[in-house]
Amino acid sequence: MMKKVVLGFSGGLDTSYCVKYLTEEKGYEVHSIIVNTGGFTKEELEETEKRAYKLGVKTHKTVDAVKSYYDKVIKYLIFGNVLKNNTYPLSVSAERMSQALAIADYVKEVGADAVAHGSTGAGNDQVRFDMIFHIMIPGVEIITPIRDLKLSREEEISYLKSKGVQMNFDKAVYSINKGIWGTSVGGKETLTSNGFLPEEAWPTQLTKHDASSVKLVFDKGELKGVDDKTFAHPAEAIQYLQTLAGPYAIGRDIHVGDTIIGIKGRVGFEAAAPMVILKAHHALEKHVLTKWQLSWKDQLAQFYGNWLHEGQILDPVMRDIEAFLEHAQQHVSGEVYVTLQPYRFQVTGIQSPYDLMSSKFGKYGEMNSGWSGEDVRGFSKIFGNQTMIWHQISESTK
Amino acid sequence: MMKKVVLGFSGGLDTSYCVKYLTEEKGYEVHSIIVNTGGFTKEELEETEKRAYKLGVKTHKTVDAVKSYYDKVIKYLIFGNVLKNNTYPLSVSAERMSQALAIADYVKEVGADAVAHGSTGAGNDQVRFDMIFHIMIPGVEIITPIRDLKLSREEEISYLKSKGVQMNFDKAVYSINKGIWGTSVGGKETLTSNGFLPEEAWPTQLTKHDASSVKLVFDKGELKGVDDKTFAHPAEAIQYLQTLAGPYAIGRDIHVGDTIIGIKGRVGFEAAAPMVILKAHHALEKHVLTKWQLSWKDQLAQFYGNWLHEGQILDPVMRDIEAFLEHAQQHVSGEVYVTLQPYRFQVTGIQSPYDLMSSKFGKYGEMNSGWSGEDVRGFSKIFGNQTMIWHQISESTK
Amino acid sequence: MMKKVVLGFSGGLDTSYCVKYLTEEKGYEVHSIIVNTGGFTKEELEETEKRAYKLGVKTHKTVDAVKSYYDKVIKYLIFGNVLKNNTYPLSVSAERMSQALAIADYVKEVGADAVAHGSTGAGNDQVRFDMIFHIMIPGVEIITPIRDLKLSREEEISYLKSKGVQMNFDKAVYSINKGIWGTSVGGKETLTSNGFLPEEAWPTQLTKHDASSVKLVFDKGELKGVDDKTFAHPAEAIQYLQTLAGPYAIGRDIHVGDTIIGIKGRVGFEAAAPMVILKAHHALEKHVLTKWQLSWKDQLAQFYGNWLHEGQILDPVMRDIEAFLEHAQQHVSGEVYVTLQPYRFQVTGIQSPYDLMSSKFGKYGEMNSGWSGEDVRGFSKIFGNQTMIWHQISESTK
Amino acid sequence: MMKKVVLGFSGGLDTSYCVKYLTEEKGYEVHSIIVNTGGFTKEELEETEKRAYKLGVKTHKTVDAVKSYYDKVIKYLIFGNVLKNNTYPLSVSAERMSQALAIADYVKEVGADAVAHGSTGAGNDQVRFDMIFHIMIPGVEIITPIRDLKLSREEEISYLKSKGVQMNFDKAVYSINKGIWGTSVGGKETLTSNGFLPEEAWPTQLTKHDASSVKLVFDKGELKGVDDKTFAHPAEAIQYLQTLAGPYAIGRDIHVGDTIIGIKGRVGFEAAAPMVILKAHHALEKHVLTKWQLSWKDQLAQFYGNWLHEGQILDPVMRDIEAFLEHAQQHVSGEVYVTLQPYRFQVTGIQSPYDLMSSKFGKYGEMNSGWSGEDVRGFSKIFGNQTMIWHQISESTK
Repeated sequence: MMKKVVLGFSGGLDTSYCVKYLTEEKGYEVHSIIVNTGGFTKEELEETEKRAYKLGVKTHKTVDAVKSYYDKVIKYLIFGNVLKNNTYPLSVSAERMSQALAIADYVKEVGADAVAHGSTGAGNDQVRFDMIFHIMIPGVEIITPIRDLKLSREEEISYLKSKGVQMNFDKAVYSINKGIWGTSVGGKETLTSNGFLPEEAWPTQLTKHDASSVKLVFDKGELKGVDDKTFAHPAEAIQYLQTLAGPYAIGRDIHVGDTIIGIKGRVGFEAAAPMVILKAHHALEKHVLTKWQLSWKDQLAQFYGNWLHEGQILDPVMRDIEAFLEHAQQHVSGEVYVTLQPYRFQVTGIQSPYDLMSSKFGKYGEMNSGWSGEDVRGFSKIFGNQTMIWHQISESTK
Repeated sequence: MMKKVVLGFSGGLDTSYCVKYLTEEKGYEVHSIIVNTGGFTKEELEETEKRAYKLGVKTHKTVDAVKSYYDKVIKYLIFGNVLKNNTYPLSVSAERMSQALAIADYVKEVGADAVAHGSTGAGNDQVRFDMIFHIMIPGVEIITPIRDLKLSREEEISYLKSKGVQMNFDKAVYSINKGIWGTSVGGKETLTSNGFLPEEAWPTQLTKHDASSVKLVFDKGELKGVDDKTFAHPAEAIQYLQTLAGPYAIGRDIHVGDTIIGIKGRVGFEAAAPMVILKAHHALEKHVLTKWQLSWKDQLAQFYGNWLHEGQILDPVMRDIEAFLEHAQQHVSGEVYVTLQPYRFQVTGIQSPYDLMSSKFGKYGEMNSGWSGEDVRGFSKIFGNQTMIWHQISESTK
Repeated sequence: MMKKVVLGFSGGLDTSYCVKYLTEEKGYEVHSIIVNTGGFTKEELEETEKRAYKLGVKTHKTVDAVKSYYDKVIKYLIFGNVLKNNTYPLSVSAERMSQALAIADYVKEVGADAVAHGSTGAGNDQVRFDMIFHIMIPGVEIITPIRDLKLSREEEISYLKSKGVQMNFDKAVYSINKGIWGTSVGGKETLTSNGFLPEEAWPTQLTKHDASSVKLVFDKGELKGVDDKTFAHPAEAIQYLQTLAGPYAIGRDIHVGDTIIGIKGRVGFEAAAPMVILKAHHALEKHVLTKWQLSWKDQLAQFYGNWLHEGQILDPVMRDIEAFLEHAQQHVSGEVYVTLQPYRFQVTGIQSPYDLMSSKFGKYGEMNSGWSGEDVRGFSKIFGNQTMIWHQISESTK
Repeated sequence: MMKKVVLGFSGGLDTSYCVKYLTEEKGYEVHSIIVNTGGFTKEELEETEKRAYKLGVKTHKTVDAVKSYYDKVIKYLIFGNVLKNNTYPLSVSAERMSQALAIADYVKEVGADAVAHGSTGAGNDQVRFDMIFHIMIPGVEIITPIRDLKLSREEEISYLKSKGVQMNFDKAVYSINKGIWGTSVGGKETLTSNGFLPEEAWPTQLTKHDASSVKLVFDKGELKGVDDKTFAHPAEAIQYLQTLAGPYAIGRDIHVGDTIIGIKGRVGFEAAAPMVILKAHHALEKHVLTKWQLSWKDQLAQFYGNWLHEGQILDPVMRDIEAFLEHAQQHVSGEVYVTLQPYRFQVTGIQSPYDLMSSKFGKYGEMNSGWSGEDVRGFSKIFGNQTMIWHQISESTK
């Protein structure tokens, strides 16, 4: 009986090579799988399936992971207002987890002997895939032909051609990865430390020029409505907001970050809906959470984002942090108002029953009945008491 | 012999009231002082001095604190990339410290019996002034007429008129506070949770429309040059950059924050040079610092900003954190390239001898001689080992 | 109709004074309340009730708060292994919260116009009581006769004598506060920075001399059994363990800490069962939690303990942290073995189905089938990669 | 010309094997080196040197690293009161860094082509050695015969016998590692999760039975004197204190910890002087540092200890943290009094000019002139203000 391998398959050069290599050189029965985290259209997925069968896979499976991706990962990235290094919404990093988990599930379902992925030995994704497979399907062999054979692009093409494979072998200037939580754009300018992507490199072009307003409705930290529409699942709300915000070419930037393997990497990204949601959610939180809730959320979320980036989503500490983040969302309900403009947006205000900036309890800069100037005088004295003693003693020992 | 009081004097309604009240009702010899942290022109300062003498102060002193403000506070805000709640450069909060410290010094110099400030009982500033005076000049009486007498604007005006004082008593729609590290704009829209400031409310209007590029030169974390100019002191570089970036109306936002006294407050601000510097500095750091340097800097700086905001600049822990931040700047030297555009800017790249994204040590996405795919395979196995064990045990106990 | 006041009543000098003062000088109808957090016997509570009525209260209520104290506070102190400054189990701090909350509830039940407590103006307790009353029963007047009248002990005694009150007016050398989570002992030696309490000052004397072993059974972080006994409620398990460990005079120390009002304070404490439980619980966690679970628990718990100490138990961030801590306890089940000896104890081992130190996954110091030396070689190379690059660049720029 | 290898040589079975293997099987010229971090006597070092030459090394070098070990590592462990998982003074972990750094220096001095260490593939040390060599001497080949050949003890013995080597081949029940910062003891009981080391397993036996007092003199956080003796270097003070405290069998415990490779490990240790110093230093700090200095020191030191344990001493973030820790020691000067008793010790008090528990500024529990009860009443109101608002709003939305 033939040994079975499950292969994460995107339809690109590397994974096409893997199909041929695994079947013809290694004698595996290949079960390919593509996990859609929001970046593929129905047509693209059908096209990928056709290509898989043409290359010789035994079966091909398409998994729609958009909602589970939201439920397991994006939800918490929003709760935590996670922007890696205060810049990047972790678009690709987060997506890889969902894909790897779906692939691991499929390995169990199929009862495969091995799992294969097309990562090279130079990036983050190899670690994310390897680690999740080690953890979720320990003992299953991990095969990584591109990494192991140290193949160049040319070698892969020449091998595929020798096997009679016909596909578009042209190399794109920019490598693009699209998902519901953002699109990354890497190449040319991002390969050095200086240079921004030119206008034409961005997948989403500016097509709306007049400012417009949009209202985001949050319920316990989750986006449930946009303007007058409500959605059965927050993933749908995100996708709808993307249709409104995307054409303004909002949320473009370049992220410089630490890869898991220690080198620095630079990548462009566009993430209109994610950036609007993160900033709107944070604005709402500033109104409804206490000072220390905001502070601890920041600290935990910074770690959460970094650890997720490094592929460690399965560490149980992540579940504990999620419990904190989820609990902190109980009052994060209300409306947030945002103005969209070409290349930028502005949160202009919020409305929430939990707003701590309630006029009932004193306006900033105006006196009220809750406390007196005398109370604050006492407060200031006690609040600075230890430092006063420290300075007195410091002076006396000089 | 008359008792002496040093009064922080801005020339506005509240502190004008204080001069009259302290001299005529309380019989003090008033020594007024204005501390310029970059918000006043020479003419404004001279005008303020005239007004002080006209109101009846014994002496008036003008302190130029721009450089000491930079040296004691702003420098560390830049080192820490400090933005309160990821939004606000702490323009006013930081300024108050410098002013209070200069006033305390002057109290000692003059040998005053008391110190007075014009704060009301409703904001942050009263705590900052009170606390620094308690700490630096303990035992010196703190007099706060506006807070203690719970005076309304109308009562102050009527009192001053009764004393024959002539000045502009009109109330501005927006209260504006200007300094080298930003200008705050409060009033009307900022008094509620919803509403953005209208275009005309911003002190700096958009006057440049064509994009331009600017180069920032950092030396150990400090801004030493802008384009081809070098400056004797970083405060001058900041002021020069402001002349380039300000006309683009960059760095406008509304901050919602926790006041020291527990209520939430909302305030608009514009801070073109500060925002450009903070983002440029952070971009440089992302290239030259290690992952954990970036992470710990963030955590310490978040606390540093919050604690400074709450008036606690004199807690010795602040000196310890500054020692950390300063030490972490040793490699933060190089050039940062920024594009300025109406209402926005973009860091486009950096150049530094300390850039860790060095092509010598492997490019992201490309193999190199420093390590092999096999090394990463081993790394991934060990890196996920504990979580693998956790999941195995978790499964086995179900 | 007479105005009602609820008075926290311990039966000591200060609160006895309060009863007389509130009834006779202020004309209040006094409703006294004592909240038992494990420090009083049935006889003591009956004695206190008698004394209250004799002093002239309208009603007296005894609240048994031992279990609610455990459920609301102690449980989380154990989950977090909370020792303030790595020393003090927060015996008194934690207790005050439970007492203040029970008093606030009673104020609402009785419909009182005011609430009174006997704190002086020199300690932590005044802040804890004041704050919880401000938060839970805002608008209810807080009366603090001892603090407001700045009464000396002698003045209180002379007033009570003048009212015909007979009680033991002798001042004890040490002030003792007893509860289920420990007993504090303050006085004489603790009033200065040097000197340990003498043997006879400790309420619990050494009466067992031979070592014995005890087994603690934890279920999701809670102590459910001791040796072969199981308990309906963990508070009972704590009390039973105290009968075993107390006679060894275990858990004595002196804590030097920061009071809420900024000065340093020193206090002795004995806490046999609490210290044994905290160390046993921590030992179990070290076996069943991952590295980052342990690390984040420490950070959150340090803050949790400090913030609780400062009376801030009602900040909603505390509920968020509790959600984290509770979630992290899912695998903290098993047995912990402890040896008790005069003045000291030693955790000697644990047994748990969730023990990550499982021989199935490799023993420390022995090779196993899960990974190879080659894997670790690869790991080490990648794990140190960024620092290697940093050093290379650092060398090259010298 | 023969290729040169520098070999870390302890004289034990593994490194003896390495000498023979590297010379006879691999044809290397072996330059052995032993780095003494305080665990070896002069006689032992001479014995080791003799053995090295007898086995056939070309040269043997003995490095006395006690002082540099203190200067580079122990000093900061004391500044940070570092106890891993609140238990273990990192005796072995810290030592390995110093040894690896000294070996790397020697590789450069000798101009060796390769460096070898005797670690197996199952522990922490391999990672520490590998990483420091990768970072400090990149490109130099790392040879690890025991790990690479997966040799059993028996195979090594049989090989050595075949080469005519005569040495004591008996396996000790416990593996012991001694250094100035503590002695680790592993074997038998520590190999499982339950069981404490028997009395006879501890290298230092109880020989003093009567309690004694000792005074530790700290200067800016460093131990400079013990009782009436002062020392030229703190390492000497530590060694002297060890002669006083060791005979009480103080500082014994078992540490359960996370290895770098992800499994849990358990090891016994005795560390009399280190534990006394850490607790004494911490007690002094509690008196002279502010609340937030103590808090941030804890957080940074926890990370510092963990990161050091994982071999990451060369990450530049460690230098930044050291800058913080060093700066925080400015007032950590004074005397600490400790009572030593069999198996335990007690810090009994301190004396310092920087003691913030100064009677001049109010005693805990007694009123003073610095502030009034009214001040604290105002403080409490403001300190709880935000939480009060939160609860009011929370109630109103129910």
